[in-house]
Order: sequence, then C-alpha cells, then structure tokens
Amino acid sequence: METLPSPKVVWVKVPAGDPTRETVRALGELLGDGDLVIDGGNSRWTDDQRNAELLAPRGVGFVDCGVSGGVWGLENGYALMYGGDADDITKAQPAFDALKPEGEFGAVHAGKVGAGHFSKMVHNGIEYAVMQAYAEGWELLEKAEVTENVTEVFRSWREGTVIRSWLLDLLVEALDDDPGLASIRGYAEDSGEGRWTVEAGIENAVATPAITAALYARFVSRQDDSPAMKAVAAMRNQFGGHATQTSAPKGGDVSDDAN
Amino acid sequence: METLPSPKVVWVKVPAGDPTRETVRALGELLGDGDLVIDGGNSRWTDDQRNAELLAPRGVGFVDCGVSGGVWGLENGYALMYGGDADDITKAQPAFDALKPEGEFGAVHAGKVGAGHFSKMVHNGIEYAVMQAYAEGWELLEKAEVTENVTEVFRSWREGTVIRSWLLDLLVEALDDDPGLASIRGYAEDSGEGRWTVEAGIENAVATPAITAALYARFVSRQDDSPAMKAVAAMRNQFGGHATQTSAPKGGDVSDDAN
Amino acid sequence: METLPSPKVVWVKVPAGDPTRETVRALGELLGDGDLVIDGGNSRWTDDQRNAELLAPRGVGFVDCGVSGGVWGLENGYALMYGGDADDITKAQPAFDALKPEGEFGAVHAGKVGAGHFSKMVHNGIEYAVMQAYAEGWELLEKAEVTENVTEVFRSWREGTVIRSWLLDLLVEALDDDPGLASIRGYAEDSGEGRWTVEAGIENAVATPAITAALYARFVSRQDDSPAMKAVAAMRNQFGGHATQTSAPKGGDVSDDAN
Amino acid sequence: METLPSPKVVWVKVPAGDPTRETVRALGELLGDGDLVIDGGNSRWTDDQRNAELLAPRGVGFVDCGVSGGVWGLENGYALMYGGDADDITKAQPAFDALKPEGEFGAVHAGKVGAGHFSKMVHNGIEYAVMQAYAEGWELLEKAEVTENVTEVFRSWREGTVIRSWLLDLLVEALDDDPGLASIRGYAEDSGEGRWTVEAGIENAVATPAITAALYARFVSRQDDSPAMKAVAAMRNQFGGHATQTSAPKGGDVSDDAN
Repeated sequence: METLPSPKVVWVKVPAGDPTRETVRALGELLGDGDLVIDGGNSRWTDDQRNAELLAPRGVGFVDCGVSGGVWGLENGYALMYGGDADDITKAQPAFDALKPEGEFGAVHAGKVGAGHFSKMVHNGIEYAVMQAYAEGWELLEKAEVTENVTEVFRSWREGTVIRSWLLDLLVEALDDDPGLASIRGYAEDSGEGRWTVEAGIENAVATPAITAALYARFVSRQDDSPAMKAVAAMRNQFGGHATQTSAPKGGDVSDDAN
Repeated sequence: METLPSPKVVWVKVPAGDPTRETVRALGELLGDGDLVIDGGNSRWTDDQRNAELLAPRGVGFVDCGVSGGVWGLENGYALMYGGDADDITKAQPAFDALKPEGEFGAVHAGKVGAGHFSKMVHNGIEYAVMQAYAEGWELLEKAEVTENVTEVFRSWREGTVIRSWLLDLLVEALDDDPGLASIRGYAEDSGEGRWTVEAGIENAVATPAITAALYARFVSRQDDSPAMKAVAAMRNQFGGHATQTSAPKGGDVSDDAN
Repeated sequence: METLPSPKVVWVKVPAGDPTRETVRALGELLGDGDLVIDGGNSRWTDDQRNAELLAPRGVGFVDCGVSGGVWGLENGYALMYGGDADDITKAQPAFDALKPEGEFGAVHAGKVGAGHFSKMVHNGIEYAVMQAYAEGWELLEKAEVTENVTEVFRSWREGTVIRSWLLDLLVEALDDDPGLASIRGYAEDSGEGRWTVEAGIENAVATPAITAALYARFVSRQDDSPAMKAVAAMRNQFGGHATQTSAPKGGDVSDDAN
Repeated sequence: METLPSPKVVWVKVPAGDPTRETVRALGELLGDGDLVIDGGNSRWTDDQRNAELLAPRGVGFVDCGVSGGVWGLENGYALMYGGDADDITKAQPAFDALKPEGEFGAVHAGKVGAGHFSKMVHNGIEYAVMQAYAEGWELLEKAEVTENVTEVFRSWREGTVIRSWLLDLLVEALDDDPGLASIRGYAEDSGEGRWTVEAGIENAVATPAITAALYARFVSRQDDSPAMKAVAAMRNQFGGHATQTSAPKGGDVSDDAN
C-alpha cells in the first residue's frame, strides 16, 4: 500500500454488512489524508454514512457506488450510481470512466454519501417488479394455452412493442436455451436490495405494491409448504367440514362449497 | 309435486351453473302461477336474473338466497341474504324464519333478484381476506420465534382485543386439535365467490387488494412449482450468472449477488 | 367494395365490443367466399371466435391482430400479434409486412383465432406492471430525498443497467419535458386489456399480483376520496376514539395510538 | 417513590421510542433491586431488550405489555400480551388481573422480554388487514348498487355468518351513526405496528400480502395526488399520445386506447 502514489483510491467490493465495514476500518488504518475508499459492493445505503465516518477522522474520503450490469458488464460496461462529495468523486472519476458503458448514459453522481447505494437499491427494486411482470405474463400465456408458441410471442415483443427491454431479451434467450424452462425450479432468492426498497418505501410512506408483490412471490417460492395456507385450510375445515389435504396431488380447481 | 298445496315454494340447493339452471328449468315445467323457486345454492349473482326469466313466463317467482354458517348452521342457525320482489319474499319468509339464527340479526332482504347472491359473494370475499389476515399473522408468529407459545397468544385474543371474531375462535380450535397444524397441508381450494368478488371489483373499478391477495395465495398454494418463479429464476441466471436450482432444498435466505 | 379485386382483405380498427361486432357483421354482408376481415382493434380475445363465426357461413375468413407501438409506430413500425388459420394469415401477410418493424422481430403468428388479441392483452398486462415498477421507484426516489437529481438517476439507467427499456427511455423524456412532472395529475385511465389480463389470470388460477397492483393503483388514482378508507377511518374511530378527518390537510404521518 | 413499599412496580405508558426510553432510564435511577418496570405502551418490540438492559444492572426487572381494546377497554377489560421472566410476570400479575377482561381469555404470557410487544404488533397487523377486508367489501357493495341497503346487509352479518366479529359490529355502529359515512374522509393514519409487522415479515421472509395491502391503502389515502400515478400518466402520454389530466374531474372509466 505504501508503494502506491498518493492520493490513493481503493475500490472495495466485498459482501455487504460486517465484511464491508471491517474492510473499511482496516483501510482507514492504512490510508491517510486525501486518500479515498470507494465501496462498490451491495451495501445498504444506511451503512454508507457510518462507513464514511470511520474514515473521516483520518482525512480519508468515502464514495459509495452501486454497480449494475451483471455478468454482461465486462462486455457492455457497468452502470454506475455513486454518492459522495464532489472532490471525492473527481478522484474516483478515472475509475468510473473505465468501468462505465461507452454511450452517453450509464453513470450518475446521485448525491451525497449514500445516494449511490440508495439509487442502486431502488434500481433493483424496480428490477424485481419488472421481472415479475414478464414472469406473470409468461405463466398466464403458458397456462391458458390460447397461444400456441409462447416463446415466439415473447420473441416478437423484442421489437416495436411498448414492453421491449433488455430483461425481455434475456428471457427469450433463456427460453431458447431451455424450452418451457423445464429444467429450472420455480425458486428465486432475494438479495437484500428488494427488501430494503420495500422498507424504504414504508419508512417514507410510499406504497410499492408491485415491487412488494415481486418480493413476496420470491419468499413463497422458497417454501415447501405455506404455513399461512395451512392456517387457511384449517379454518375452512373448521367451519365448512372441508376435508384438508395431507398428501393429495396439487392442481385442484374451484370447489362448490362456499360458506 | 301436484299433491303439495299451492302456492308451492321449492328450495333448490344444487351446484352453481348448469345444474342449478337445469333444475330451475325443470321446476318451471312443474310449477305454475304464484309458485316460487328459491335458489339457496352458491350461484353467481349474474345467473339469477336469467334463472328468474326462465320462470317468469309461467308466473313462477324466483328468489336468490345466499346462505352462510357452514356446518355450524344446524346449531347456530344459517345467515341468509336474499333478493327478489317483496311478494316473493313474503312467500319465502317462513322458510327463512325457520333457518335463520335466533337473534336479531342474520337475515336480510338485500334487494332485487341477484342481490342475495351478490351480498353473499361479497361476504365470502371478505371472508377470504379475514382468513388470510389471521393466517399471515400466524405464520409470522411461528416463524419469528419471538413468542414461545403461539397458540396461547391466539387464544388470548379471543376476548378484549380488536380482532376477536368467530374465525379466530375456529382457528384456536384447529390449533388445539392439531398443534402447529402439523398434519395439514398448506393447500387451499377456492370456491368461486372469491374469484367473482375480485371480478366484480374490476368491473366496478373498485380495488380489492386484500381480498385479491387472499385469492392469489390460494392459487399459489396449489402449485407444485411456480412457472412465474421459473421465469424469474431464468432471468436472474441470464444476467447474473446465478446458478438456478433444479433439485436443491427449499428455505434459502438472502444472497449477496444483486445486479 | 365491389370494385376491389378479390380476394378482398379488410382491416377493421374500431372500438372494441359492439362497434367491432357490428362492423364485422356489416362486412359479412358485403364480402364473399375467400375474402378476409382482420380485426386490428383492441377487442377482447373472447369476442374473436364469435366474430369469426359471423363470417364463416359466407366463406369469409377472420384474423385477429393485436397492435402495439403507440404513436411511435408510424416511425418504428407496429408490433403485431395475430391469430387465425394459416391460409388466412397468408392473405394478410402483405399488410403485416408493411406495418411491422424493419428488424427480425415484431410480428408473430400466435395461434388460432383469438390468440392474437390474447397475446396483445397479456402484453398490455405486462406493460401495466412494468410502468408501475418505474413509477414506484420514481416516487420513492423523489420522496426520500436521498438522491439529489432523480431525473439524472433515471437517465443514467438507460444504458448498462438491468432495467434499461423503452418505457424507461420514455419516462426520461417525460421528465425532461416536465421536470418533476409538475403539470401532470396522478390520474391514470385503464383501457380494458389490464382488466382482462387479471380476469384471464383468475380464470386460469394464475396469480398476477404485480399486474393487479398496477391495475388497482389506477382505479384508486381516479377516486377523489376512497370509500374503503372511509370505512377504515370509521372503524378506527369506533374502537379508538380517533378523530376522523372531515377537511384536514393531507400528508400526515405515523400516529401513536395503536389499539 | 421512596414512600412506596418494595418491591415497587411501575407501569409506563408514554409514546414509543425516545420518550419511553428516557422514562425507563429515569426510573432506573429511582428504582432498585427487585423492583419492576412494565412498558405498557406501543413500543417496537426491538426496543424492549435494550430498555431491559438499562435496568438490569440495578436489579430492576422489565416486562413489556401490549394492550388492546381501545376506548372500550374501560368497560370490557383490556387484552394483554406480555413478555418477560417468570419472576417479573408474577410481580406484575395483580396489575394484569385488574386490567384483563373478566372471561377466560384476554391475557397471555407470550414469552421473554419483547414477546409481548411482538405479539401486540402482529395483532395490529392482523387488525389492519381485517379492517381492510370489511372496507373493500363495503366499497364494492356501495359502488355496485346491486344491493339496496348496504347497512342492512352488514347488520345481518353480525349473526350466523362466518365473518361475524367485533370489528364488524363497530362498522355497523359507525354506519348507523353516519349513514353512508358521508361525513368521514377516506383518510387513515397508521400507527407503527402495521409498518413493523410488514418489516418483521420481510426480515423473516414471511409474505404478508393482505396486511401490506392494508398498510399501503392507508399510505395512498393520505396523498392528495399520487406521484407514482403521475409517472404512469406521463409514460402513457409519451407512447400513446394520451392527453394527461391537469384539472379534469375524477371518476373516468375504461378508455379504448390500448397500445
């Protein structure tokens, strides 16, 4: 570290939470006045100010930078959303310029420390709901069996439609790779940003029903059996004498036993 | 039929849709001026006017009657919501009086033909969301493991709380019968009225998000694997290089791989 | 009509429902064996089979064609989703080729009669949820005031991100035209396809929570005052002695009066 | 304070957050070994452990107690959910016995410190969704105008139905006091517990769609104009040439302009 010329700029990309904090703390010991730490990981934006404060007493700056683009970033460039003081951003600019896409978009100085990760968090919240939108449409087309080739319908949407997008392109690629998605389980992890977006909405009294629906669909996808639906089934059984299921096959339809 | 004194009143309780229609049609052949058919089944309210019109040319009246109370009705009386002309209701009144609960509530002349089943439909839509409310709370209490005896918490709510209700009483009985609901699958049918309530909301531009959430939770509970979540997983895999699951165990948690 | 050479192909684009049906019926009187009617309007897919049956006795074919692209179609080409028999599609192909985008995508033979409008309906349902996704993110960014220039954040997302799309491009244009969307009311119509998508989901037991959330947000946006929230306020007042509002200003926050 | 016999038991009911914390801290200065503080306010359960730790060094015990029942508690008794060590609960028991309803239910030792407020929080989350359920049903009945007297339909439901409950009773009283709820604005505050329930759900990966829908409906009810819907309207205007509204009257219906 000492052999690097000053000002030194260190890009941190480690898991969010304690690992990032410990890394920032350790860097604070090694760096000095005028140096800069960029947290390019997926930290919760509320961590940023605290991490900045670990560094400030030694004159070390802090910039948070949300990065989007996935594995395609190497080819297309990475979209960057960063927050921090103007002086610190200036120091980081060469790194941002090297990473960003070639076009006129793809990088933004979003505001003070925390604004980068906050913007990235909202980006990901939006991403959850956009993915859910295509997913619901896909399930409906497949289930209804009115259209004969669902993949071709999705493919046609890639041009001229209101809903053309990169995520749509990716879904078509996935459908080409694995017709009917037969080999994929309907199981989706969530990565923090979706949860934090919903929580930020609640904190600001902003309703985010589509983003929340997307998050909850992921939660439910990871359950073998739904405790809530056990409770619903139990209540129905109590008032209606409905037989509950213990090992029956899935897929039932409307029953005529309303109470 | 001919040996019954006139005016004859016939209570029909057969499955909704074609069976009810065919029964009404057949009764129209047998009954005559001044007689009355009561559809006490779970017909969609939009069927009622058409069924009434099958009978009107012969002077046979029609009353639709939604019935609530489940298997407990035999003991507690059945709640009744009926629709039809005042004269027809008068003819039906003795039957309603015999079936209704003993107290001052539990029966209502809701309006013209169709109003009974419409009211019952909305009743059931509400029922879906109320059950879902308790079910979500139960799942959260069980999962969070902050409270030590979830059944006792639910039992305590039966008196003094804002959320005391008959459905709550039933859920406590179910929890007593089957601690943790261990023997019940998280699988819930839906019976038509929930769907029709959401559709009536859409037709009237009335948002019913809680009722709809309850309905959708039942849909999802009946799927072995969610096609929509297959699509979400496929997209995540495309942009993020996330490994998708083919046979992995359920229950995973937050991953640190946001894109 | 008689002066046109046969086979005649007529493109109908009139409002859905009765106007389309009456137009199809009238064309049936004028056309003959081997001619073709294309319904390029926004008909509900369930109308298509019935409209086709109006024409079939005279040997007139029917193709339904959903059209996407909005006012930009004139420049970019119109995305087309069509349903019908292969022979009829062949007759219509020159019209489709003239209208479709120039690239390799943007047109699909989706299946039998009805499959075109069904696919377009699902397209629009997806569109509702995608728009809602960006809208929720925009509201959150504006309300939270963590980012300093929300328009620039959205603009940056146009390249390199997972959520880049044509709708995002349009939203940025709208934000450039009208910073903060200050002159636009938060009021959104819905156009049928969103409702039909949710209804088709219900009919097929497919949960569409994000699409439904988008539809309901539009319903609520058109209400001066929410009847449902009047009922909630009335209940709170009953059990909690909460003062209800009659003319108070909006914007309140968390109160400390839980019961 | 000194004149009270020991062990002293102090019931705290002040606003959640800092006021409660400062009160607990101050009591810690005044109380001593074997005394007890009961937090009977609406604290977030995550505060309880920290408040307990303020007292522990001086040998002062801590019990958290959620209280339900509203203004009716004076007459009906208050439902109590409490958390803490068994010894501390024993000291508090006389107070609990004095406050609880007379029947066999209405009080529960839910678990360790925090379990009382956690249980009360979930109770309130359920309450949100149950209220929303009735509210949606009421709006639909009023809007559809199929039933002629909505209040009488609700009144009938008080007996014999599956959805009979105390909240239903209260809603009927409100409708009697103010027919059509004409004098009440559709504006509902939220009081913390609803938000915390949703957040606890997210933290535990438990989907709470009905409770969340109820919370979001309250958020939206407090907005004069929806920023999210401004964004939706702006996008529609961009792609469809739809005129947006600036001052038009509310209440519009389906438009025939799908893109």
